[in-house]
Amino acid sequence: MDEPEFIAALRSLPLHPGARNLEDDCALITIGNETLVINHEMMAEGTHFRPDADMADVAWKLVASNISDLAAKGAEPVGVLLGHSLGRDDARFLQGLKEALLAFNVPLLGGDTVTATGASTFAMTAIGRATHHPVPARRGAKLGDAVYVTGTIGRAMLGFEGAAHHRAAFDRPEPRLAEGLALAPLVSAIMDVSDGLLLDCWRMAKLNNQTFAIDPDAVPVADNARRDECMRWGDDYELLFTAAPGAAIPVAASRIGKVVAAGFAPLVLGKNAFPTADNLGYSHG
Amino acid sequence: MDEPEFIAALRSLPLHPGARNLEDDCALITIGNETLVINHEMMAEGTHFRPDADMADVAWKLVASNISDLAAKGAEPVGVLLGHSLGRDDARFLQGLKEALLAFNVPLLGGDTVTATGASTFAMTAIGRATHHPVPARRGAKLGDAVYVTGTIGRAMLGFEGAAHHRAAFDRPEPRLAEGLALAPLVSAIMDVSDGLLLDCWRMAKLNNQTFAIDPDAVPVADNARRDECMRWGDDYELLFTAAPGAAIPVAASRIGKVVAAGFAPLVLGKNAFPTADNLGYSHG
Repeated sequence: MDEPEFIAALRSLPLHPGARNLEDDCALITIGNETLVINHEMMAEGTHFRPDADMADVAWKLVASNISDLAAKGAEPVGVLLGHSLGRDDARFLQGLKEALLAFNVPLLGGDTVTATGASTFAMTAIGRATHHPVPARRGAKLGDAVYVTGTIGRAMLGFEGAAHHRAAFDRPEPRLAEGLALAPLVSAIMDVSDGLLLDCWRMAKLNNQTFAIDPDAVPVADNARRDECMRWGDDYELLFTAAPGAAIPVAASRIGKVVAAGFAPLVLGKNAFPTADNLGYSHG
Repeated sequence: MDEPEFIAALRSLPLHPGARNLEDDCALITIGNETLVINHEMMAEGTHFRPDADMADVAWKLVASNISDLAAKGAEPVGVLLGHSLGRDDARFLQGLKEALLAFNVPLLGGDTVTATGASTFAMTAIGRATHHPVPARRGAKLGDAVYVTGTIGRAMLGFEGAAHHRAAFDRPEPRLAEGLALAPLVSAIMDVSDGLLLDCWRMAKLNNQTFAIDPDAVPVADNARRDECMRWGDDYELLFTAAPGAAIPVAASRIGKVVAAGFAPLVLGKNAFPTADNLGYSHG
């Protein structure tokens, strides 16, 4: 069973209303006037990090990837729970975990520690507090909206390849928490870009039954000569969002396209239409 | 680094007050008048389940072990998030997950699905709503309190060995949710017994800086001829708790001992004192 098949099967189980049919990255629990935003991520050796990775970076990215999903909901972090597999340079893991918790100002709530054999797997659940209602979601993009992305795309790719100036973008990504808080009241749809800009544009458009028309030259890339690769690589942890075309955007972001009526392809990049998500990004499960 | 060393190191990180110094199984988050009780468990192939285990049973136990920790806090389940490693008989896993969610009346909130290599690891975060304040904890046992345990100890062991009458106790344990809700207002300390009764008695006494004097003949065991083994095996998911000696106990439970002044050993079993936790139960991490 692949990931889409598995998630489709999960939809036949009893779902909490806050699961929002498992279409979004975070679940919502409303208590009184507060809404908690909850995200869970796993990272597996060989899939999400290399066996020779510095475990401090792995721990940092585990926290960052969770916080990035909270950022896309405009949620303030409350705390995280860690699922830790012992045995892969635990002291370095702890060091990176500490640095990330301090950097993002989020405390540890609890978790579980296990002894595992073979490749290591780590889990984290992040809990945040929504700052705006309704909580923004992947759904909600409106016909005529503009499409935006924060930051510069492709930095993680260059960092992964060893470019000194971009190493931190790959090893120690900084989720766009402040930007997410500022954007929550005005976006029509939002998600973080973790699997590649084009793939995430395709997914958001598909979920909204629309087409995103993206101007490739408007996408801010880290290496102009490798624009296509930059737009397909993942791990950038920027925010992709849609907003009314006249909306004043309170954060640094680039307008990269617009929401148009659904055509046969969820994504149109310049003159190229992409009816399927094949080769648009990194589907690593 | 072993599990106690790792947890000790975690205590030097920024902790949420609801982490309660990582001494308990669950974290607490208070919002308005409500307290959420949050638990996270991982299960690893080779450590928590055998490579030839029916994945439906593994999924059931993943849910049951989480719900059991909520039960020990007198919490009503709100929902669970699943961290799933694809590839180990996913259809059976989904079947057991569905059966457990329906049996414990708890919906799926969300989660993450990954492709992993080698041995499989699964994670679950359970969120519940406290029904009593303060939320009962492992801490709180008072000198002179009586010590109780629900159910019959050792059934999971016999079920693991193949005894037909006890198979369900091992494959499909039923957390004591109703008992936990009934006990929450009157216990002084409580935890679920997952690593063996004697080990968990030792741990609770140690945390409370007391000694638990347990009468081995008062412990309800599934096989009288193997009383010692029953008290040391784990996976029973019963509730261990202390209460004032005159308290009326509203659930079926056996009085197995009492809380006495701290001696040199946290646990005294009949005439035998156990200063260390060695050989008292199953420490599988």
